[in-house]
Amino acid sequence: MSDSLKIAIAGLGTVGTGTIDLLQRGAEDIASRCGRRIEIVGVSAREKSKGRGLNLDDFSWFDDPVSMSSDSDADVIVELIGGADGVAKGVVEAAIQSSRHVVTANKALIAEHGKSLAILAEEADVCLAYEAAVAGGIPVIKVLKEGLAGTRIGRLYGILNGTCNYILSGMRDTGRDFSDVLAEAQELGYAEKDPSFDVDGVDAAHKLAILACVAFGAKLDFDSVFIDGIRSMSSLDIKYAEEMGYRIKLIGIAQVHGDQLEQRVHPCLVPSNSVLAAVDGVSNVVVAEGEFFGRCVLEGQGAGRGPTSSAVVSDLMDIASERFTPTFGLPAKLLKSLTLTPINQRKGSYYVRLKVLDETGVMADIGAAFRDEAISMESILQRAEDANGNVDVVIVTHNTVEADITRALRNIFMRESVVEEPQIIRIESIGVD
Amino acid sequence: MSDSLKIAIAGLGTVGTGTIDLLQRGAEDIASRCGRRIEIVGVSAREKSKGRGLNLDDFSWFDDPVSMSSDSDADVIVELIGGADGVAKGVVEAAIQSSRHVVTANKALIAEHGKSLAILAEEADVCLAYEAAVAGGIPVIKVLKEGLAGTRIGRLYGILNGTCNYILSGMRDTGRDFSDVLAEAQELGYAEKDPSFDVDGVDAAHKLAILACVAFGAKLDFDSVFIDGIRSMSSLDIKYAEEMGYRIKLIGIAQVHGDQLEQRVHPCLVPSNSVLAAVDGVSNVVVAEGEFFGRCVLEGQGAGRGPTSSAVVSDLMDIASERFTPTFGLPAKLLKSLTLTPINQRKGSYYVRLKVLDETGVMADIGAAFRDEAISMESILQRAEDANGNVDVVIVTHNTVEADITRALRNIFMRESVVEEPQIIRIESIGVD
Repeated sequence: MSDSLKIAIAGLGTVGTGTIDLLQRGAEDIASRCGRRIEIVGVSAREKSKGRGLNLDDFSWFDDPVSMSSDSDADVIVELIGGADGVAKGVVEAAIQSSRHVVTANKALIAEHGKSLAILAEEADVCLAYEAAVAGGIPVIKVLKEGLAGTRIGRLYGILNGTCNYILSGMRDTGRDFSDVLAEAQELGYAEKDPSFDVDGVDAAHKLAILACVAFGAKLDFDSVFIDGIRSMSSLDIKYAEEMGYRIKLIGIAQVHGDQLEQRVHPCLVPSNSVLAAVDGVSNVVVAEGEFFGRCVLEGQGAGRGPTSSAVVSDLMDIASERFTPTFGLPAKLLKSLTLTPINQRKGSYYVRLKVLDETGVMADIGAAFRDEAISMESILQRAEDANGNVDVVIVTHNTVEADITRALRNIFMRESVVEEPQIIRIESIGVD
Repeated sequence: MSDSLKIAIAGLGTVGTGTIDLLQRGAEDIASRCGRRIEIVGVSAREKSKGRGLNLDDFSWFDDPVSMSSDSDADVIVELIGGADGVAKGVVEAAIQSSRHVVTANKALIAEHGKSLAILAEEADVCLAYEAAVAGGIPVIKVLKEGLAGTRIGRLYGILNGTCNYILSGMRDTGRDFSDVLAEAQELGYAEKDPSFDVDGVDAAHKLAILACVAFGAKLDFDSVFIDGIRSMSSLDIKYAEEMGYRIKLIGIAQVHGDQLEQRVHPCLVPSNSVLAAVDGVSNVVVAEGEFFGRCVLEGQGAGRGPTSSAVVSDLMDIASERFTPTFGLPAKLLKSLTLTPINQRKGSYYVRLKVLDETGVMADIGAAFRDEAISMESILQRAEDANGNVDVVIVTHNTVEADITRALRNIFMRESVVEEPQIIRIESIGVD
């Protein structure tokens, strides 16, 4: 058996301790599979004395994770601190600069700095692995980089944030409001105290940018992702969508048309028979579509101690077995530069909900505003008036351009008979045969 | 850029020509990803002159694929002939013995001879790759061998045969008989002229044995797979199952309890809300469950030119990139020997349909036979008598041992009031949260 692979772990939160647990419990099996042991030689965290239910005596302790990255005798630095900048970035850069491989679960870091870090890693001839950064329980990075490498992927989409999916599933099941279900998710530990990163779509956008880069062999471009979160979703919309044969999900979608790249994260109506509709709670799902293989659907747990540390260990086993792939599947200089498609050029159908006064001529005004932008309606649902004499009018349009419907709704909202800002949600007929 | 990887292809059917097409169309991208070209140097098939819409002039032609495997200057032999024995086996053995890597789409060969071939490949220090053998459009071998290698898998199940799934979906959608939908599937090319390999469950069993070996790190043991096909499924059972909240699917399931291995392929009732229930038509789905990562669901196209040749090319790209994994994830001598659990020790619930005379006391007799074996019933459905004065009694049992229910049904069938051999189908509550 070869020499052991020496690793040092920066960050001893749930994923860090989970990784140590998994490496210790699976030591024999890992050695059999890799032909060598994986040996933890150093650890670093904010506090040494914190009770973690772990004996750290066998590992060298480092107060400073950055100096651990450059000074320990580890072959691999495992970065589990998190955050796009600050210490985490310092740790990864120091590791690469001192010719050590890096394994990280840090999606923000990869999404925002992956482009430059990949170049650094390539120059240093080390591996930058991040399977745990996207949908921990699903080996989707490996599937896109290696398993489906034999053919091109044209479109990729999925449910990439478990917190949002939990909240939307909860709103649908119970008819409760966003803030109510969010509070429940926070109590259960499915949402952070400051939930903005999740519910505003940033976390899903980080993952989408990484997946798009790997799937299309394109330069990672987080800044060009259009992002909208789920705060404005109401259980009313969820109910109306349901009546019209749809579910509301926070979707990440990326596709390539020629040299144009579309990357967006926003709430969507998807058909009730879509593979996405059935994925409830904190699960994640990623769907890749390509001309040659058709459609490949990957579903599993997106986050949490077990799935994430399992992904970290798989990356370590690839390194121990000397199975290397370029960071994003291709040498950095060969990644394509694609042009962003702006969101107002999106072509598709839309769900529109208007609250209007129950007066003669209101529907004629709405119809005229749509006609003026050449938007045709697929279906209309009108509900009896509420206590204030207002009625809900819900419209599903045929395919149209986003700029046009935005203009139509601006005109409609100028009418005095329209009492609330119109709700508009994109419809994507994805994940159906 | 390094020297090209030289390959020779044995078998130029749909997958062989698809592989050549994909290698030619993707040549630049493959070279970028692997750092070297993949060059076809030789081909062999039964007839040289057959019109394939391909120009073979650039490749050396071999009348005999076995001598191509030992005499060409290829680094890799791609075996796409098929069949567990005969020429295909000769090709693979000759390739390994002359120190060439092998890529194959041949599930019968791997399931039946993989154990000895893996040892040969290990001795020769070459790679034996077979991603295309199981669920072509889903990189499930790579996921199990590498992506989920960080933690142990406890249970694995799925829909592994597209032909059976197409037939069962068709029977359900249209209420037609097995033979009728089979004929349609044959016309559409989804079923072979002699369909026994698919409809009798052998093909699914080949795939299950391979998946179980890779998932559990256990010795490949196709002979110990319990196999039952779908010929005896009726649209009546599909209808009754539906009324009781189930779908009928041909399922492959493998699980480990201590040193016991259970491997079986048979029709099953699965809950309507199971991830398996929603997979219709020729799709395949594989579900892996493990303590650490939870549940990982992989769905896609199981067979056909595109998905299969895409998997062949991915295997070639792994070899070109020198990413090697032992044939079944572990060196052959470290694969565990597990003891087979016989099918009559299966513990679970059962669907039973009896056709009985509409007479007083029949239900008492049935009840007594179940009671004598300590089997309790979860639900009973009785339908009004048909033209012959017979009624259908459908029973769903609580968990029981297969040996016991088999005995109970034998006793019941001895009654004169039971006019047909009882139908019995296993129920598996898998793929639900």
